[in-house]
Amino acid sequence: MDQNLILELIAPVIAILGLAYSLVFWAQVKKAPDGNAAMQKVAAAISTGSRAFVRRQYRTITILSLVTGLGMIAIYSATGSWEHGLQIGSAFLLGALLSGLSGIVSMVVATKANLKTAASAQNGLNAALQMSLRGGTVSAIVITALSLIGISALYMIYRVGFGFPADEIPRLIVGYGFGASFVALFAQLGGGIYTKAADVGADLVGKIEAGIPEDDPRNPAVIADLVGDNVGDCAGRGADLFESISAENIGAMVLGAVLFPFFGLKGILFPLIFRAFGLIASIIGVYTVKAKKGDSPMAAMVRGFWVTTILTTIALFISSYYMLNTISPTTGEATWLWFAMAGVCGILTAVAFVYITDYYTGKQYRPVKAIAQASTTGHATNIIAGTAIGMESTALSVLAVCAALFASHWFGEQSGLEDGGIYGTAVATMGMLAVVGYVLAMDMFGPITDNAGGIVEMSKAPEEVREVTDELDSTGNTTKALTKGYAVGSAALAAFLLFSAFMEEAGLESVDLSRVPVFIGAFLGAMVVFFFTSLAIRAVGRAASVIVEEVRRQFRENKGIMDGTSEPDYAAAVDIATKSALREMILPGIVAVAAPILIGLVFRAEAVAGMLMVGTIVGVLMACYLNNAGGAWDNAKKYIESGAFGGKKSPAHQASVTGDTVGDPFKDTAGPSLHVLIKLFSTLTLALVSLFI
Amino acid sequence: MDQNLILELIAPVIAILGLAYSLVFWAQVKKAPDGNAAMQKVAAAISTGSRAFVRRQYRTITILSLVTGLGMIAIYSATGSWEHGLQIGSAFLLGALLSGLSGIVSMVVATKANLKTAASAQNGLNAALQMSLRGGTVSAIVITALSLIGISALYMIYRVGFGFPADEIPRLIVGYGFGASFVALFAQLGGGIYTKAADVGADLVGKIEAGIPEDDPRNPAVIADLVGDNVGDCAGRGADLFESISAENIGAMVLGAVLFPFFGLKGILFPLIFRAFGLIASIIGVYTVKAKKGDSPMAAMVRGFWVTTILTTIALFISSYYMLNTISPTTGEATWLWFAMAGVCGILTAVAFVYITDYYTGKQYRPVKAIAQASTTGHATNIIAGTAIGMESTALSVLAVCAALFASHWFGEQSGLEDGGIYGTAVATMGMLAVVGYVLAMDMFGPITDNAGGIVEMSKAPEEVREVTDELDSTGNTTKALTKGYAVGSAALAAFLLFSAFMEEAGLESVDLSRVPVFIGAFLGAMVVFFFTSLAIRAVGRAASVIVEEVRRQFRENKGIMDGTSEPDYAAAVDIATKSALREMILPGIVAVAAPILIGLVFRAEAVAGMLMVGTIVGVLMACYLNNAGGAWDNAKKYIESGAFGGKKSPAHQASVTGDTVGDPFKDTAGPSLHVLIKLFSTLTLALVSLFI
Repeated sequence: MDQNLILELIAPVIAILGLAYSLVFWAQVKKAPDGNAAMQKVAAAISTGSRAFVRRQYRTITILSLVTGLGMIAIYSATGSWEHGLQIGSAFLLGALLSGLSGIVSMVVATKANLKTAASAQNGLNAALQMSLRGGTVSAIVITALSLIGISALYMIYRVGFGFPADEIPRLIVGYGFGASFVALFAQLGGGIYTKAADVGADLVGKIEAGIPEDDPRNPAVIADLVGDNVGDCAGRGADLFESISAENIGAMVLGAVLFPFFGLKGILFPLIFRAFGLIASIIGVYTVKAKKGDSPMAAMVRGFWVTTILTTIALFISSYYMLNTISPTTGEATWLWFAMAGVCGILTAVAFVYITDYYTGKQYRPVKAIAQASTTGHATNIIAGTAIGMESTALSVLAVCAALFASHWFGEQSGLEDGGIYGTAVATMGMLAVVGYVLAMDMFGPITDNAGGIVEMSKAPEEVREVTDELDSTGNTTKALTKGYAVGSAALAAFLLFSAFMEEAGLESVDLSRVPVFIGAFLGAMVVFFFTSLAIRAVGRAASVIVEEVRRQFRENKGIMDGTSEPDYAAAVDIATKSALREMILPGIVAVAAPILIGLVFRAEAVAGMLMVGTIVGVLMACYLNNAGGAWDNAKKYIESGAFGGKKSPAHQASVTGDTVGDPFKDTAGPSLHVLIKLFSTLTLALVSLFI
Repeated sequence: MDQNLILELIAPVIAILGLAYSLVFWAQVKKAPDGNAAMQKVAAAISTGSRAFVRRQYRTITILSLVTGLGMIAIYSATGSWEHGLQIGSAFLLGALLSGLSGIVSMVVATKANLKTAASAQNGLNAALQMSLRGGTVSAIVITALSLIGISALYMIYRVGFGFPADEIPRLIVGYGFGASFVALFAQLGGGIYTKAADVGADLVGKIEAGIPEDDPRNPAVIADLVGDNVGDCAGRGADLFESISAENIGAMVLGAVLFPFFGLKGILFPLIFRAFGLIASIIGVYTVKAKKGDSPMAAMVRGFWVTTILTTIALFISSYYMLNTISPTTGEATWLWFAMAGVCGILTAVAFVYITDYYTGKQYRPVKAIAQASTTGHATNIIAGTAIGMESTALSVLAVCAALFASHWFGEQSGLEDGGIYGTAVATMGMLAVVGYVLAMDMFGPITDNAGGIVEMSKAPEEVREVTDELDSTGNTTKALTKGYAVGSAALAAFLLFSAFMEEAGLESVDLSRVPVFIGAFLGAMVVFFFTSLAIRAVGRAASVIVEEVRRQFRENKGIMDGTSEPDYAAAVDIATKSALREMILPGIVAVAAPILIGLVFRAEAVAGMLMVGTIVGVLMACYLNNAGGAWDNAKKYIESGAFGGKKSPAHQASVTGDTVGDPFKDTAGPSLHVLIKLFSTLTLALVSLFI
C-alpha cells in the first residue's frame, strides 16, 4: 500500500475504532440498572424536556445554517467563483451537521447517564463515579472522533475523488471550521441562556420568595433547571469543543501546508494523527479513574488527568520524531526535537490552566475565602470582591499563554526552517488540545452528576445516596470550572495559529495597527466583545423574568402546589423557558456573525485581521474574568454553606447567594459563549477571506 | 517685533491673563458671606481634613517623583546621554510640579467655595449655582493656564535660551507630559481610593448597621466622606485633566513638527494657541450660566456648554485659516478648510460623548429605568442589569470615536499634505479638548455642591436651603458623569495622536501585530488594564474595611454618639482613611508605571507600541463600562428614591443601594484612574522611547 495512503488513513481509522469503542462504554451505561420508579419518572421528565428543547433549537439552527451555507454558495457564484463557493459551502454544511450531531449525542447520553448514576449511587461512591465518567467519556470520544472523521472525509474526497495535491487541500476545507463554530455559537448561546434563565428563575421565586430549597419538587421550574444542565452544559459545551478541535486542526493543517517543502504530507497530517493518539491516551486515562476508600473523587480525576498527560507527552515525542523530522537547511541539524519541545509548551499550558483555575475558584485558596469574608459586610462588598478577583485572575492566565507563545515560537525558530516559529505555536496548540478527550469527559461528567443529584433529591432517596451525589456534584462543579479555564486557554493559544492561517490565506505580510482602518477594526473588535457580553447577560435576565412570571402564576392559580397536594405543571415551565431562550439567542448570534463580515466588507482584510487579533485578546480576558469570577462566587457561597462566617441562613450567606446568582450568567452563558465567539471570528474570516481582499 | 515671537507669545500671554482673571473670580468667591457658625465649623473640619490628606499625599508623590525624575537623569547619564536625561528629567519634574499644583489649587478652591455655596443657598438657587460654578471656574482656568504656561516656558527656554530650532523642541519637552501623568495617576488613585473608601465605609456602618441617614453628624466617618469629594473629585480630576491637556498638546506639537515643511512654526504652535482661545470661550460660556425662575440648573449648564462650543467652533475656523493654511503641493488647493473640518469632528465628538453619557446615566431614559425595574427582583438582578448596561454603553462610545477618527483622518488626507491624515486626527483631538475649560468648571462644580449639601445637612439648616443644595447636588452628579464620559472620549481620540507621536520618535514604520513580540505586548497591555482595575477596586474594599472598623470602634467605645450627647472623633476617622488610602495607592501605581517599562526593555519599541495601542483600546472600553455602569446604578437608586417601584425603604430600594455601592469604586476610583493610566502609557513611553530602541 502507498505509504502516503497509510498516513492518510491512520487518523480516520483510529477515530472509527474509537467511535466503535464508545459503543462499548455506551452498552455498559445502558445495561446498568435504572433505579426505582420515582427516579425513572423524574429522569423521563428531564429527558422529555431536553429533547423538546434541543429539537426546537436545532430546527432554528438548521434554518440559520442552511441560509448561511447556501447564501455563501450564492454569493460566490454571483461573483464568478461558484466552484470555490461550493467548496466552502459544502464544508460549512458538513461542519455544521457534525457539530450539531455532537451536541445532540452529548445531550442524549447525558439524559440516560444521569438516571444510571443516580441508581448507581445506591451502591456507593466509586460505582456512581465510574458510571458518570463513562457516560461523559462516550460523549467525549464521539465528539473527538466525529471531528477527525469529518476532516478526514473532506480530505479524502479532495485527495482521492478530485485528485487535488495534498498541500492545496487544507484551504479547501476551511468552511468546515466555520460551520462548526456557527452551530456551536447558537448551541452554546441558546443552551447557556436556557440553563441560567431556568436556574435564576427557579431560585428567585423558589428559594427567595417561596422559601423552598433547591431542587424541591414543588417548584414548577425545577425540571427546567435540570433540563438546563443537559442543554447548556452538555449540548452547548459539546458543540463548543467539537468546534475547537475542528478549527484548530484545520488551522494547523493550513500552516502544515506552508511547511510542505520540508515535511511533505506529514506536516499536514500531523495535527490529525497526533490528535488521534491523544484520543487513545484519554481513553486509557479514563480507565485509571477509581475512587478508593477515603479518596476524594477529585483526586481520582486528577490522577487520570496526569496519566493522560504523560501518555500524550510520550505520543508527542514519538509522532514528532516520525513526522516532523527533517534536516534543517540552515542549521544542518534534525528538527524534530525543537517541535516536540514546542508541543511540550502546549501540554504545560493545559496543566497551568487547570491549576490557575483551581486556585481562583477552589474553596481552599485565598480568592474564594476573600469573597466569603467580604460577604460578611453585605451584598455590595461580595460583588466588589468577586469582580476584583475575576479581573485579577486574568493576569496569571495571560502570562501563561504569553510564555507558551513566546517559548513555542522560539523553539520553532530554532528548527531553522522558514516559518518554523509559527509552526511551533501550531504544535503547541496541538499539544494543549491533545488531552481534550479527557478534559471533555471530565466536563460532561459535571452535568450528569448534577442531574443525578436532582433525580435523587426529587425522588426522595435515602440520605446516604444523597451524600454520594452531593459529593460528585461538588466535584462536577470543579471539573466544569477547570474545563472552562482550559477552553479559554486553548482558544488563546490557538488564536495565533488561526491568525497566521488567515494571513497566509489573505496574503497579508503584516497587520499594521498604526494604520487608521486597522486600528478602527481593532477597536471595533474589542467593542463587539463587550457588546456581545452585554447582550448575552441581558438575554438571561429577560428569559429569567419570563420564567419568574410563569412560576408565580402557577403558585397563584394552583394553591395545592405549595402544600404538596397537587403537582406543578413542569412541562409548561419547560416550554416557556425553551421559547424565550431560543428567542433571546438570535440577537447576540447575529451580532457575532455580522460584525466581522461588515468590518471586512468596509475596511478589508488587514482591518479584519486587526479586529480578529484584538477581539481575541479582549475576548480571552473577558471570558477569563467572567468564568473565574462566576466560579469563585459559586464556591464562596458553598464555602459559607459549609459553616464558615455563620453558615447557611446567615447574612453573609444571603450576600453570597447574590454573588452566586450574578455569577451564573457570567460563567455559564456569556463566558462560554465568548470562547465560541473568538473562534467564530477566526473560522468565519478564514472561510470568507476572499470576500475581504 | 519678530512675527515668530508674536506667535510664540500668544498662548502664554492669554494664559497669564487668564490666570490673572481667575483672581477676579476668586475674589468674588472669597468676599461672599461665610454663613452661620455651625456651617463654618463643619467647613473648617472638612478643610482641615482635606489639607491634611493632600499634604501627606503630596509628600509621598514628591518622593516618588523625585526618585523617578532623578532616576531617569541617572540612567540616561549612565548610558552616555546625560544631556538628554537632563532634558527629559527636568521637563518631567516641571510637569509633575505643575500637575501637583493644579490638584492642590483645585482642592483649596473647593474647600472654600463649598462653604460660600452653602451660605448662598440661603439666597436661592441662582445665587448658589453661580457661586459654585464660579468656584469651579477658578480651578478650571488655573489648570488650563498652568498647563499652557509650563509648556510655553519650556519652549521658550529651549528656543530663546539655548537657540534650538523650533521643530526640534517638541521632542525635548515630552518629559513634561510624563511628569504630569505620573502625578495625576497617584493623585487620582489616592484621592479615588480615599473618597470611595470613606463613602462606602460611612454607608456600610451608618446607613446599614446603625440606620442613620447619609451625612448624619453622628456618623464618625461623615467628615471623611465630605473630605473625599475634595481630594478625589477635585484634586484627583484636576491633576487628571491637567495631564490630558499637557499630554495632548505636546503630542500634537510633535506631529506639528513633522509638518514643519508645510506650516512652519504655526503648525507647532497651533495646539497651544487654539487651546488658549478655547480658554477664553470657556470663560465666556461660564458667564452665560444663569438659572432663571422655573429653570433647572442642568438646563442652564447645557446652555453654557453650547455657547462655549459655538465660540470654540468659530475660533477653530479662524485659527485654522491663519495657521494651517498652505497650498498643497499635490492638490494645488488651500489646506485650512480640511483641517478645520477635522477639528469639527473633534468638537462633535465632545458633544456626542456628553449626550451618550447622559443617555446611559440619566434618570429619564431606558437604561436607568431598566436597572430600577430589575431591582424589584433583588440585589442580583440589579447587578446583572447594571453590568449589562455598562457593557452596552461601550458600543455607542466606540462608534463615536471610530467615526471621528476615520473622518478626521480622511479630512486630513484630503489636504494632500504628507502625514496630513495623522495631523487631521491631531486637530480633531484639539477640537475635542477645546471646550475642556468649560467641562472642567462643570466638573469641579460637582464636589463643591456635594460638600455644600453636606454642610447644610450637618449644620441643620432649614428645609428650603436643603432643597436648593439637593437640587444642585443632583445636577453635580450629572455633570460629574458627563465629565468622565468626556475624559474617556478625549483619551480615546487622543490615543491615536499619541501613538503617532511615539512612532515618530521611535522611528517605527509600522506596528505589526502578527509579530510574536508585538502580539505579546498587546496581550500584556490589555491584561494590565484588567489587573490594574482589579487592584484599584480591591484597594477601595480594603481601605473601606479599615474605616468600618474605626467607626464600629467609636460607636462601641462612646455610647453617647448615637444619642447625640457626645461628638464623634471625626479627625481620627479622617486620619485612618488618609493612611489607608495612601498605602493602597502604591501598588496599582507601581504596576502602571513598571509594566510598560518592563515590556519595553524586554520586547523593545514595536512591542511597546502594541501594548500602548491595545492597552488604550481596552482601557477606554473598561473605563466606559465602569463609569457608565456606576453612574447608571447611582441614578437608578435616585430614581427609586424619587418614588418609583415602591420608593425609599422598599426591597427594590435596598437592591438599588447595593448597585450604587458597587458602582462607587467603579466610577470614582477605577474608571477615572484608567483615563490616567491610558495616558500615562503614552507619555511614559514617549519620554523613555530611547531606552526601548
